[in-house]
Amino acid sequence: MSNLTGTPTRSSVGGRRADYSTAAGGFPVRLHVQSLLRKTPSSLKSPEKIMKHDEMGIVSAPERKLVKQLRASNTRFSAADSTLAVNGKNKKLTDDWESKKLDLVAGGRLLQDGLVYRQNISVRSFEIGGDRKMSFGALLNHLQDTALNQGIITGLLVDGFGSTREMSRNNLIWVVSTLHVVVDRYPTWTEVVEVDTWMYASGKNGLGRDWIFRDSKTGETLANATSVYVMMNRETRKLSKIAKEMRDELEPYVMDCERPIINKDGRKIQKLDVSAADQRCTGLSPGWKDMDINQHVSNVKYIDWILESVPHSLMERYDLNAMTLEYKKECDMDSVLQSLSKRVSEGSTDSFSASKVVEFDHLLRLENGREILRGRTVWKLRDTNNRVNSYIY
Amino acid sequence: MSNLTGTPTRSSVGGRRADYSTAAGGFPVRLHVQSLLRKTPSSLKSPEKIMKHDEMGIVSAPERKLVKQLRASNTRFSAADSTLAVNGKNKKLTDDWESKKLDLVAGGRLLQDGLVYRQNISVRSFEIGGDRKMSFGALLNHLQDTALNQGIITGLLVDGFGSTREMSRNNLIWVVSTLHVVVDRYPTWTEVVEVDTWMYASGKNGLGRDWIFRDSKTGETLANATSVYVMMNRETRKLSKIAKEMRDELEPYVMDCERPIINKDGRKIQKLDVSAADQRCTGLSPGWKDMDINQHVSNVKYIDWILESVPHSLMERYDLNAMTLEYKKECDMDSVLQSLSKRVSEGSTDSFSASKVVEFDHLLRLENGREILRGRTVWKLRDTNNRVNSYIY
Repeated sequence: MSNLTGTPTRSSVGGRRADYSTAAGGFPVRLHVQSLLRKTPSSLKSPEKIMKHDEMGIVSAPERKLVKQLRASNTRFSAADSTLAVNGKNKKLTDDWESKKLDLVAGGRLLQDGLVYRQNISVRSFEIGGDRKMSFGALLNHLQDTALNQGIITGLLVDGFGSTREMSRNNLIWVVSTLHVVVDRYPTWTEVVEVDTWMYASGKNGLGRDWIFRDSKTGETLANATSVYVMMNRETRKLSKIAKEMRDELEPYVMDCERPIINKDGRKIQKLDVSAADQRCTGLSPGWKDMDINQHVSNVKYIDWILESVPHSLMERYDLNAMTLEYKKECDMDSVLQSLSKRVSEGSTDSFSASKVVEFDHLLRLENGREILRGRTVWKLRDTNNRVNSYIY
Repeated sequence: MSNLTGTPTRSSVGGRRADYSTAAGGFPVRLHVQSLLRKTPSSLKSPEKIMKHDEMGIVSAPERKLVKQLRASNTRFSAADSTLAVNGKNKKLTDDWESKKLDLVAGGRLLQDGLVYRQNISVRSFEIGGDRKMSFGALLNHLQDTALNQGIITGLLVDGFGSTREMSRNNLIWVVSTLHVVVDRYPTWTEVVEVDTWMYASGKNGLGRDWIFRDSKTGETLANATSVYVMMNRETRKLSKIAKEMRDELEPYVMDCERPIINKDGRKIQKLDVSAADQRCTGLSPGWKDMDINQHVSNVKYIDWILESVPHSLMERYDLNAMTLEYKKECDMDSVLQSLSKRVSEGSTDSFSASKVVEFDHLLRLENGREILRGRTVWKLRDTNNRVNSYIY
């Protein structure tokens, strides 16, 4: 399925090289965390005016900031009416700032002063694999979708490219730099999953977004994900610094948290030595449906290609437990790629039976050798007893 | 996304050849329509007992039949509790046969004495193409999904392969023979679509399933679809006649309608003359994620392959308005295919501008020449004025 994210590319800002991939689903900025979080809102209006809306239908950042301060931290907050999210129209925000939970058709609502977006998703028949469980690709689709829905429900997202108003005026889009996903248990067909997502400042050069997937009945954590985004000019494909207007725009939506939900894997992903690769798929080309809105290859397609290079004998008995991706360069409709993988945990790719955990390093590259993406996957031996039950319901 | 349907194959019953594709999403039977619809239910229980459930949690077919007769035709009917569909557990049917509308998480409910299944779907970001509209493949996913959901909510579907209890005991699965889809307008991102689906007897050799996709606000018809299914033995891959037990099982769920929602295109799809093909994609191979539960290529993948052979210059300015498919033979993980297409409407594939409607014939075949699928697509010139608006919301 085509989607809005994708478009890994490489460009430079101030002489530095940075790695990233476009993503309509993220709302991160290249900003200075401390200055952002400690900034005193200026030109605040009277409390009455806080409940009003500007002519474009969005409460200004300083107003939102004040509302955040005024509200008790445990008060639920609804910043959009159902028309807003259902129609995708950028209509006025609702006057109801109280704890009224407005479950939209998509099932989304805001929590914790509007900083956390929560949505229930039901695992559909077209999202599952042969084992009746949600596929990894389907899970990634929901990372993007819930991020975009938060942007719609809050009114932060104002164009179809996932940009804020100021970003759109400056022709800027979001790009993914890294993505890290850990799946403890894949939900099964018809299971209902509760997804929480929020944004936070991440270092000097970007902003992060985290997700938690939970069993909606038991609260059991099913999966966590962390992504770091930066901003890019849509035309020049160069990274961009964040102007004050954008900082102000984003500030009310940024969580004050110190670190992502998934701790960084300390081990750097080395560039895979091509001659040492265990597995290799060549001649990979995107189809027209793999293109995103900018006519670049979508994020999810990259993951398909990575998984194609993993031995089928592994997939039959192991579940994908974790994936770390570092985007290096974009590719387009005419690109022809190779997907290489190498087992980095002990043992050979022919004998997995002795190992409970198997790790691979991955490389997607153009046929001319240029690096597109580096990745690492961790696979865990499947509990076959559980699996049998999932076939009968 | 992997899914449960797919698996086109060819087998024989009583010396006849029949064309089909496996589909967990359909509940059709090879039966004699008139005998089925006129049959008098036998061994009916008292009205009190009708509200009880058998030990397997399914009200027997004659009981359901009687309930149908007893209820006024305009009474809304709810045959499942939310636990049933949410968990996919085959639990007891609810005692509440009244007009209580039980919207499940998936948004589904039964109407018209339980014969019609209705579900609202919200178009998600991962279901749209570059034009912000639901892709054709996503629409097909929902054909399968709503069909399966009807099976779950009614309790007719008892195993993960989409079979009824009797079918499962006899190792039988559903296979798609033909599929016909007409799309008047593709819904856009975040739009809510109301889907109705029902089953009916179709000729001597199968049963049909129809779908209507409507704008949930205006009631405008967005798309119609019709599919014909037959039954196949999972092991021998041969078509199977329907035993009385299965007929009884299915009867309460079969609509008494004379013809499908889409009138058959009278023009037979000719086998495409390979040497005359305008467009050709070769070396097409399914990936592991294109496999269904039976390790056969999924239906949706076939459609991807067909669309890959349509000129990109056409897709940029035309919308896919209709598709007719006739499944001929199954293929599997090791198959290597060719996708061929030929413009059958006037004009050449290089100059579409003069035509408001363009038609193609399609052929998917193995490299050894064996036919997998025949198809026809109809494309309509896009209204570019409408398109511009859909980019801003």
